[in-house]
Amino acid sequence: MRYFPAALERLTEQFARLPGIGGKSAQRLAFHVLSMDDAAAAEFAAAITDAKATVKTCPICQNLTDQAQCSICADEERDHSQICVVAEPKDVIAMERAREYRGVYHVLHGVLSPLNHVGPDDLRIKELLARVADGSVREVIMATNPDTEGEATAMYLSRLLRPMGVQVTRLAYGIPMGSQLEYADEVTLLRALEGRQEI
Amino acid sequence: MRYFPAALERLTEQFARLPGIGGKSAQRLAFHVLSMDDAAAAEFAAAITDAKATVKTCPICQNLTDQAQCSICADEERDHSQICVVAEPKDVIAMERAREYRGVYHVLHGVLSPLNHVGPDDLRIKELLARVADGSVREVIMATNPDTEGEATAMYLSRLLRPMGVQVTRLAYGIPMGSQLEYADEVTLLRALEGRQEI
Repeated sequence: MRYFPAALERLTEQFARLPGIGGKSAQRLAFHVLSMDDAAAAEFAAAITDAKATVKTCPICQNLTDQAQCSICADEERDHSQICVVAEPKDVIAMERAREYRGVYHVLHGVLSPLNHVGPDDLRIKELLARVADGSVREVIMATNPDTEGEATAMYLSRLLRPMGVQVTRLAYGIPMGSQLEYADEVTLLRALEGRQEI
Repeated sequence: MRYFPAALERLTEQFARLPGIGGKSAQRLAFHVLSMDDAAAAEFAAAITDAKATVKTCPICQNLTDQAQCSICADEERDHSQICVVAEPKDVIAMERAREYRGVYHVLHGVLSPLNHVGPDDLRIKELLARVADGSVREVIMATNPDTEGEATAMYLSRLLRPMGVQVTRLAYGIPMGSQLEYADEVTLLRALEGRQEI
């Protein structure tokens, strides 16, 4: 026999497809949705649809935005000759929290990871090279996570960028090795930014 | 400044409202939704809406169903004079897995819990009393969880039901005390069903 109504089974399956959600958790979440009032459930469903429909990547820095350009790329007071390269959109937020950096960003949407089959073509690298190629960029700051894959990605990019006549720097190791950029506190990030070295 | 697009923030908030999902997990899930293709995201949103729209409670046993009556109440081969009282819809599934019980169910949708402000009026108790009051019920089997609240709920119901001239039994303590009914294995449930005692 079929145990639960089909629509409930389908909702459970949908939750179970999310990362880190197992079968029992998915069932619990599906039951929770059933216990929500109609308006709240409709709001949840609409939030999914809206996020997919309105959130795009900025054509310049590849960060997430719902505008034609992201608010940082559109800000004329920022230094567009200085690009900070980060792995993920959440790393932009971590950098902005340090309230020190006035340049712009480039979001790779990942790091090189041969074990996970992530190669240069899977990241927004050609978009970065295009930005540097037009000659207006003075410095590229590598702000990938200070772990093996982040380091390898920074080294790979610096070898591509240096021949283009741009200064390539790396955040100083004020950041504790092996940790994640998004969990770093503001002071540590500030030190890392001040102590950056040419690579 | 606003860090992420508004639609992404809203989706993160929606995930964060689910039970057991913290802020960082909610953000991770929201990013995952953005990385899904459009069809998969639409399917997820539709699953929420459909589940809310089509899943109702059976007017007889209060179990979840998408039909006018649930498949167990509608099954004429089952013994409608025997009602097994469980706390949650998932407990019906646990009982059905034992493949021994041929009566019908009544789902309370919770247990008495003064600490969580759950009283008799918050459970489907009056619906159970109405079923027993029509005289066609011979036995009511209490199958709430063998923990403090489940026991208290079973005792409370047995005091209401016994004066109505119905036999009230309790699942035998083949079920290990303090555990949850939904995790019990089939054999344990079978023992518990066979060894039930009048209370």
